[in-house]
Amino acid sequence: MKFDLNSDMGEGFGPYRLCDDEAMMKIVSSANIACGFHGGDPDTMARMVRLAKQNGVGIGAHPGLPDRAGFGRREISFHPDELRQQMLYQLGALSAIAKSEGVTVGHFSFHAAMGNMVNRDPVLADLMMDAISTVDSRLVVFVSPKSEIERAAKRAGLKTLALFLADRAYDGGGKLVARGLPGALVKDEASVRVRVRQFLTDGTVEAIDGTVIAMTARSILVHSDTPGALELARIIRSEMEASGATFAPAAELAS
Amino acid sequence: MKFDLNSDMGEGFGPYRLCDDEAMMKIVSSANIACGFHGGDPDTMARMVRLAKQNGVGIGAHPGLPDRAGFGRREISFHPDELRQQMLYQLGALSAIAKSEGVTVGHFSFHAAMGNMVNRDPVLADLMMDAISTVDSRLVVFVSPKSEIERAAKRAGLKTLALFLADRAYDGGGKLVARGLPGALVKDEASVRVRVRQFLTDGTVEAIDGTVIAMTARSILVHSDTPGALELARIIRSEMEASGATFAPAAELAS
Amino acid sequence: MKFDLNSDMGEGFGPYRLCDDEAMMKIVSSANIACGFHGGDPDTMARMVRLAKQNGVGIGAHPGLPDRAGFGRREISFHPDELRQQMLYQLGALSAIAKSEGVTVGHFSFHAAMGNMVNRDPVLADLMMDAISTVDSRLVVFVSPKSEIERAAKRAGLKTLALFLADRAYDGGGKLVARGLPGALVKDEASVRVRVRQFLTDGTVEAIDGTVIAMTARSILVHSDTPGALELARIIRSEMEASGATFAPAAELAS
Amino acid sequence: MKFDLNSDMGEGFGPYRLCDDEAMMKIVSSANIACGFHGGDPDTMARMVRLAKQNGVGIGAHPGLPDRAGFGRREISFHPDELRQQMLYQLGALSAIAKSEGVTVGHFSFHAAMGNMVNRDPVLADLMMDAISTVDSRLVVFVSPKSEIERAAKRAGLKTLALFLADRAYDGGGKLVARGLPGALVKDEASVRVRVRQFLTDGTVEAIDGTVIAMTARSILVHSDTPGALELARIIRSEMEASGATFAPAAELAS
Repeated sequence: MKFDLNSDMGEGFGPYRLCDDEAMMKIVSSANIACGFHGGDPDTMARMVRLAKQNGVGIGAHPGLPDRAGFGRREISFHPDELRQQMLYQLGALSAIAKSEGVTVGHFSFHAAMGNMVNRDPVLADLMMDAISTVDSRLVVFVSPKSEIERAAKRAGLKTLALFLADRAYDGGGKLVARGLPGALVKDEASVRVRVRQFLTDGTVEAIDGTVIAMTARSILVHSDTPGALELARIIRSEMEASGATFAPAAELAS
Repeated sequence: MKFDLNSDMGEGFGPYRLCDDEAMMKIVSSANIACGFHGGDPDTMARMVRLAKQNGVGIGAHPGLPDRAGFGRREISFHPDELRQQMLYQLGALSAIAKSEGVTVGHFSFHAAMGNMVNRDPVLADLMMDAISTVDSRLVVFVSPKSEIERAAKRAGLKTLALFLADRAYDGGGKLVARGLPGALVKDEASVRVRVRQFLTDGTVEAIDGTVIAMTARSILVHSDTPGALELARIIRSEMEASGATFAPAAELAS
Repeated sequence: MKFDLNSDMGEGFGPYRLCDDEAMMKIVSSANIACGFHGGDPDTMARMVRLAKQNGVGIGAHPGLPDRAGFGRREISFHPDELRQQMLYQLGALSAIAKSEGVTVGHFSFHAAMGNMVNRDPVLADLMMDAISTVDSRLVVFVSPKSEIERAAKRAGLKTLALFLADRAYDGGGKLVARGLPGALVKDEASVRVRVRQFLTDGTVEAIDGTVIAMTARSILVHSDTPGALELARIIRSEMEASGATFAPAAELAS
Repeated sequence: MKFDLNSDMGEGFGPYRLCDDEAMMKIVSSANIACGFHGGDPDTMARMVRLAKQNGVGIGAHPGLPDRAGFGRREISFHPDELRQQMLYQLGALSAIAKSEGVTVGHFSFHAAMGNMVNRDPVLADLMMDAISTVDSRLVVFVSPKSEIERAAKRAGLKTLALFLADRAYDGGGKLVARGLPGALVKDEASVRVRVRQFLTDGTVEAIDGTVIAMTARSILVHSDTPGALELARIIRSEMEASGATFAPAAELAS
């Protein structure tokens, strides 16, 4: 069965690096490329597009809030239309850079606070997904299962792909436990391995309350901005290969 | 005969304004929209696109160097490929915002130092025009007569439209006298009126050395970031109307 | 009786201007100088210091949140210690620029959201005032009557000066009606004149609910970032002069 | 004999790190703290001041050009007075943060392009050193031997401390070979060890043309933004200790 393994990439800027993007690009099948607001810059974006092309990796837009110092993790009270324009601006910017390299942007994945704000607000979610649909109706949107973004994307006629986060805890209802809450991050390697294996073989995950819940995702996200990210990505990839998974970019798997 | 009257617009950002864009949009036939680097922001860009649409004004990308404090007027030593990615980033950003409003970006006009750097370097000019051509081969490029940008645009198969700057002096060879040199700016209203009239009726302009030279432009640029810009634009428009000119957006006039 | 008339100044940036600072500096007795975060830049700050010196105007630090696009009006969730360092950074920056011009920073006035956040949080207010006191114990802090900042400043041993905002409504408890609420802004000239006169002669103001409340302020703030700000400042000054007030910088009036 | 070992520190920003500052602070005797323009931010600056205090390390201001994406390495054509205000702004900002922690800024060291511009222009060098002298006449200025900054600092009555860069080549005249020229960087560990030893025991260095020249510096600078910086710093420190050197912050060694 085909799966996607993806990571946020190109989140450095100027002299700053958050991740060994060259190495990560050899592990993933899809790259969510930062678009210059929370991280990244035009030069880094072009470098990511070229690396992805060389490695047969699918590329996606990964827009965030315009807040580099906060890495796009702080919510800022923009009007819904401002958020929409910020998202379109970043999506268009990456699209032009990609097109000039002969590559098509295939998917879309919100970064941090921008995604949280959209997922909490059905009206904003509809506004955003309608805008994406108008600009590029073929884009595949990364979603958490049962989220507002998933609902709004389907309503706007966009394909979606559900993500499984192997290093994050889920609650009994299948939602991510918020960063900052106890147990939200799964840090030890053995637990991550077990979770990936269970996800691939049974299509389930053990929630933070001990219940076993269905996990219908077809794509695994590994964060790139944490220490040990590269090693974690290699572990997940090796578990995926061991379970017989084959890899495909997100845009080929979505429905 | 049809002419275009254009201005750089949306060059404010956040609470800052350089021009009464609402009023200017009622005067021009084409708007060169700042793309967030030297001025502008996503919200302002969307506002400009909507204003242009309401007023039947054609829109163009007006990318500059990433230097708001210097308003894109200071040269910064970027690598050619960095400049190319910065240009593509801005062009793509505006294109997506425009597309979501049902409007097409029709033309392209460099801002200040970015344009100066490109006009001085044939290799960079080719790099830039090839990139534009790959991303959107229908774009019309604003050029100074006999410039590197004109040559490179034509070589890349792009249409061009020559600009006449009614408030700037030309030398005997038909090139703009650099800002900062004595006499570079034509400030008094009467002189501007005379120059516009002569340009429209005779197709000529009096150079700074007193010679009369051909001016084959089909579009007049009025700067919007100077005091009295709006009044100057109104004067030029009334001279154009008085001479029997009709107006069309740049994209309709190019060849 | 001596009063201070003050305004936020130097809130432009690079080519951008929010106010005719040269003209305003001839009207006020104290200038609250933006320190480069919500507005201003080192060059503008030096220009303001020099203008103030020429006009015998007292200068104060006017720090805000690092958010130029939002003009420091949007709250951003910083840790208290981050806010403290941001405030100290800006205060120190202005102090050095002023010292090199032979001028001393005499007062301190929070801008917008930074002030709102501090006024809402007693612990943060103490943290901030203690920090100011450690760095320069002679600074006079601008306060709203009965605010957390007033309480914390006095506790930290700092002098304070209460502000009267002639163009803003107060509620019956003597607190400012929040921007955005109906009636929060007093826009017509006649009403502002009446309010200034009543404040100067009776030491009272009519609250938004019609009650007349005491207003013990010794300084009047005029906003500089609104259309007509200069005219409003002239009106207020002329009313103050008509009522026999004389003018002194904030640092001379505080207790 | 006492020597200083110093490094540029706190050059990260928000989530970005260029160096393991915690580890580096245990190796050096002086820290040149980035002041928020080319790198650093108020929060990081405070963290550096606290770390330096804990480790008995002297602190200095390390101002640069306002260009984070270019890490302050690109020259930008500011007016001399703008550069002066930018320098004062950063120096004052660090001074206030340090004062609130009970620490005094003891030295001053330009970063990259700002320093290069000053070193090339005697008028600018005088302007800068006069400004520093006015604001804090006790500051010790880091200089290259025989540079414009050294000359101007002494003229302005400021103490100086000459730097030896163990990982950079010198020409026969005792000047640094510019970055980018062949052989400018000394990369192998053994060569660095030899150079440090020769400097400490003989007070000389072998220039790039093979001649042996005097090196009268009392302070060694290790760059922190290169891979292996920490290991290089440890090597240099161990060579210094092996040769019997003892350590003191820059401010104690200057004359």
